[in-house]
Amino acid sequence: MTSQTDAEMNNKRVVIEGVKPEIDSGRHPIKRVLGERIVVEADVFTDGHEALSCELLYRPGTSGAWLAVPMEPLVNDRWRAEFTVTGLGKYSYTIHAWLDPFKLWSRNLVKRLEVGQDVTIELLIGANLIDDTLHRTKGNDAALLSTYAEQLRAGPESGVPAALSGELAALMLAHADREGGITYDRELEVVVDPVRARFGAWYEFFPRSCWEDNCTHGTLKIAEGRLPYMKELGFDVVYLPPIHPIGNTKRKGKNNNVLAQPDDVGSPWAIGSDLGGHKSVSPDLGTFQDFKRFVQKATKLGMDVALDIAFQCSPDHPYVKEHPEWFKLRPDNTIQYAENPPKKYEDIYPFDFDTPHWREMWAELRSIIEFWINHGVTIFRIDNPHTKPLRFWKWLIGGIKETHPETIFLAEAFTRPKIMYYLAKVGFTQSYNYFPWRNSAWELTEYFTELTRTDVKEFFRPNLWPNTPDILHESLQHGGRPAFMSRFVLAATLGASYGIYGPAYELCVNTPVAPGKEEYLDSEKYEIKHWDTGRADSLKTLLARVNKIRHDNPALQSNDNLRFYQTGNEHLLAYSKATDDLSNVILVIVNLDPLSTQSGTVEVPIQELGIDPFAPYLVQDLLTGTYYEWSGTHNYVQLNPHVLPAHILLLSSK
Amino acid sequence: MTSQTDAEMNNKRVVIEGVKPEIDSGRHPIKRVLGERIVVEADVFTDGHEALSCELLYRPGTSGAWLAVPMEPLVNDRWRAEFTVTGLGKYSYTIHAWLDPFKLWSRNLVKRLEVGQDVTIELLIGANLIDDTLHRTKGNDAALLSTYAEQLRAGPESGVPAALSGELAALMLAHADREGGITYDRELEVVVDPVRARFGAWYEFFPRSCWEDNCTHGTLKIAEGRLPYMKELGFDVVYLPPIHPIGNTKRKGKNNNVLAQPDDVGSPWAIGSDLGGHKSVSPDLGTFQDFKRFVQKATKLGMDVALDIAFQCSPDHPYVKEHPEWFKLRPDNTIQYAENPPKKYEDIYPFDFDTPHWREMWAELRSIIEFWINHGVTIFRIDNPHTKPLRFWKWLIGGIKETHPETIFLAEAFTRPKIMYYLAKVGFTQSYNYFPWRNSAWELTEYFTELTRTDVKEFFRPNLWPNTPDILHESLQHGGRPAFMSRFVLAATLGASYGIYGPAYELCVNTPVAPGKEEYLDSEKYEIKHWDTGRADSLKTLLARVNKIRHDNPALQSNDNLRFYQTGNEHLLAYSKATDDLSNVILVIVNLDPLSTQSGTVEVPIQELGIDPFAPYLVQDLLTGTYYEWSGTHNYVQLNPHVLPAHILLLSSK
Repeated sequence: MTSQTDAEMNNKRVVIEGVKPEIDSGRHPIKRVLGERIVVEADVFTDGHEALSCELLYRPGTSGAWLAVPMEPLVNDRWRAEFTVTGLGKYSYTIHAWLDPFKLWSRNLVKRLEVGQDVTIELLIGANLIDDTLHRTKGNDAALLSTYAEQLRAGPESGVPAALSGELAALMLAHADREGGITYDRELEVVVDPVRARFGAWYEFFPRSCWEDNCTHGTLKIAEGRLPYMKELGFDVVYLPPIHPIGNTKRKGKNNNVLAQPDDVGSPWAIGSDLGGHKSVSPDLGTFQDFKRFVQKATKLGMDVALDIAFQCSPDHPYVKEHPEWFKLRPDNTIQYAENPPKKYEDIYPFDFDTPHWREMWAELRSIIEFWINHGVTIFRIDNPHTKPLRFWKWLIGGIKETHPETIFLAEAFTRPKIMYYLAKVGFTQSYNYFPWRNSAWELTEYFTELTRTDVKEFFRPNLWPNTPDILHESLQHGGRPAFMSRFVLAATLGASYGIYGPAYELCVNTPVAPGKEEYLDSEKYEIKHWDTGRADSLKTLLARVNKIRHDNPALQSNDNLRFYQTGNEHLLAYSKATDDLSNVILVIVNLDPLSTQSGTVEVPIQELGIDPFAPYLVQDLLTGTYYEWSGTHNYVQLNPHVLPAHILLLSSK
Repeated sequence: MTSQTDAEMNNKRVVIEGVKPEIDSGRHPIKRVLGERIVVEADVFTDGHEALSCELLYRPGTSGAWLAVPMEPLVNDRWRAEFTVTGLGKYSYTIHAWLDPFKLWSRNLVKRLEVGQDVTIELLIGANLIDDTLHRTKGNDAALLSTYAEQLRAGPESGVPAALSGELAALMLAHADREGGITYDRELEVVVDPVRARFGAWYEFFPRSCWEDNCTHGTLKIAEGRLPYMKELGFDVVYLPPIHPIGNTKRKGKNNNVLAQPDDVGSPWAIGSDLGGHKSVSPDLGTFQDFKRFVQKATKLGMDVALDIAFQCSPDHPYVKEHPEWFKLRPDNTIQYAENPPKKYEDIYPFDFDTPHWREMWAELRSIIEFWINHGVTIFRIDNPHTKPLRFWKWLIGGIKETHPETIFLAEAFTRPKIMYYLAKVGFTQSYNYFPWRNSAWELTEYFTELTRTDVKEFFRPNLWPNTPDILHESLQHGGRPAFMSRFVLAATLGASYGIYGPAYELCVNTPVAPGKEEYLDSEKYEIKHWDTGRADSLKTLLARVNKIRHDNPALQSNDNLRFYQTGNEHLLAYSKATDDLSNVILVIVNLDPLSTQSGTVEVPIQELGIDPFAPYLVQDLLTGTYYEWSGTHNYVQLNPHVLPAHILLLSSK
């Protein structure tokens, strides 16, 4: 009896463990969007033959009164309940369970009656249990319970029917001794984001580039005029690379040349000049008034604007002069430029996040986000977050979301898997991921199973990009137009969120700066491009069609409903997405071979998808409108990549 | 900057997660025996391109100075180190990691030199890093470091060789700024038990039964004379059912009859009469002096004695009179007997663990264990622990092991899986398990994979019993002698710990009390049996042989080295056990069909077991001494269950 406390030895005999969802012992919240369910399961048990009852407790926020949902027992001491999140911001949940002697007594009474035992004394025990409950009960319920206790005490004739009444069971549950139970030792958190955090098609473009003949440098005003084009293509988010003044010192020339020519425009990510920094709009692009109109026009068209946040400075950034203490000094008293030895990036100064003046610096960086929120932006694509402290992001995103739970932060962290996931754990709403480098059926199946069928789905929301200004994968370089079509369909149907870097994508731009490189030749990062988006071979019709299909079919607006199927052909990838109620079931088949027609037999357990396996059924290809009569689980498909490398089949739409 | 503390925002940038072994977020300790290794792995990473260093910290006990072992990086941000436990009782371990700027600097210096960069300024940076370290360094190391700093400052000619020296790297690691790092937020615990906790063959017998003609009631003195027999059979632990006085009230007769005859001896588990309770020896069996001699004789023969602890009372137990407040009263003022409705066990009163007087009662129960420890017993087989509070066991076993870490507690909990595992988590050293009901190759493979290849192996040590006085499985009822042989080999080779209830086992007693029941006819639990252990058809030679094989081959003394193989025949189960260094490799093949000869091709990846796949090799059946010449991975076996249903093949013994 030495070191043990009363609390450890008292009668709190219930164990709660194996709680799901729970990320890293509750160190990190799970994520949901408005209107989603959270299904909570746990192992709940006790010693002996005791009965127990169990409730899921949840609440908006992290303090205040709990709401309770009874948990239902499954098999093997597993219990389950669910709740729905209806407000932005944080929710919390936990589990409460207690020994329920009346439930045990009732269960045993039935067994005793079945073998004809005399239950007179048992009824007295039951009446005593009711009396115990009366101490916690007032009003009408107390009166009802007293009557039941009397009936039980009067003997089996009146007592047995009373004891078995559903009303008595409900009253006893309502007034059960919850205080004597235990609450799970962790309060788990949910971050609830807007629906856009789960579902959206992104379009990235450089507003300084030209899409019309009479243009030498694009502007926000011109870009505003291009918004209807993006709307026509069906995009939900338009995302702009940094729009701030660009540095002159060590400015990069075309094709990342270290010596810029006088007319070179530089990289938008070399932020800051004497014209301003992260809180300025480059005069070359326009004014804050122009930006405001751009955002208003996008909003009017039903699109959101996403801004790029790159926490780094050109040597000319005002911060460098005003706050040299925010940067690292070298022994020769120069400021340390960015590098990944032996590579040097002398046009970029990274912040020193460990500076003794970090408090001021962190606050200033946070104020950049707040600045743009005040200018109508709620979606931020964060450049290279993995090169800044993980705790910084936890602090920044956590803080911003306290007052702006509507914000979305997309992590552009192409880094090692554990760090990629950890950034999501500490707060990033969405994440770039390895999709660009997952090209075979085997790779895609393995990777998307990890993303959608493991705990990863609780905190990591992939945003799928078949290309970016930094990534022109060799599958696009070598696969040409068929590959651009198939990779687009994959991104748009495997991922509820996806994006493209356009117009390079719809125009199938695919020349690398050098063989074996993923950089574009004549990259738009370093020069103004002139795009002809009206070209006959543009993929814009396909893009518009697929985006409409995404909007019309709720099955395509989630990730964790993804299921892969066998095709008997390694070039054919088949998968379905279905709504929970099976009212909308989509089957996608993609030919991954950009060169040849491929055929195979798709094997779909259609019964699981709500389709009668013994009757023929019609499937419609939503890409072409064509109907096919299928039957059973095995059906033949053939896809010519030069025509259309994919089927998006509607199996069921009730 | 509102609710965040300095500690949350400072430069502790390292993340430690995914630590293994760790049970339920560290809520429960893992288990090891003396001399075993603990291999610890974790994901350890940070943002950016920083380098880090990482140490496993461990110590005997749960306080005091840590010992440190450097962790080595594996792939994908996973790190590993190990330590060995050399003392009984608790150990604790955790992980410490820190940013290592000198390691980063050295790594980058090499890259810079490879491309011929001027490193003059880099060497100054390196010298500054050495200076930072000097603040923490004294004596010779400080002098050495100062010299290195000077050499670096003198320029590349002297600086580069100095910078690349292994001595400098070692000094910088030794004096690294560990304080600036982070320690994993949990201290994880290990319970270290004696080797017997992992490896041992148990023999259960009723000392009151007779094994010789001139005997009507066995005694401890007679049982002492039977110990050489058990030693001859190769057992390590002799386990006695309760040896206390047996109650008279509601005593059970033969075959569990509720009406005992005057000469019925009653169940040893109906503990207590006016002759005493849990701290008494039944006069029918002898005296404390006899018990002492019994233990001494066993010890002399190299065997341990295990006692049965059943925390329950017959109605005649002294506790019932002295402490009626330790039991539940019914409304008619009778004491509540044990029941599992509609079944009643009126010869047993369970303790009321929730009594307001629980403190006194729990202390008394614990004193029972201490009482028998003082009488030389360190192994306790606990009867039905799942019907007592889980917290009680945590308190009792935890408390006992604080002063007696040499004790072993075997949980006889044939209950639901989560509770069975939880009892192991809260302290039980070993556990009965579902082995009696796992009979097909598929069931055995699935179950033993769960026990030996998942986290379960860290806290749950199975003790395999093919029979007990309560369990005569139908496979033995129907399979006869061949089944007794095969189930024995399975128990003794699948489990490092196993036990039998004898002499019923070696004499192949297999008549149930009724068809479909697992109880024995004329069960020894309720009557005195007369055993003829000299019978010609006894399995004692097989038992002795297998137990010798277990002692001679360390591969059979562990559990988590178990690997199953294909045989192409569902009646043939094949598996290996090997020591870590492959110096001892055993392959077991068992015919599970008690009726017919079965043959098949055993498919063993022999290369993994250290055997040249391109040369023939000899295997020896340790059961018969026969040698076979095998070659390659696929070899033919045939087993006649009526002769010998198993091979125990020695593949390698260096």
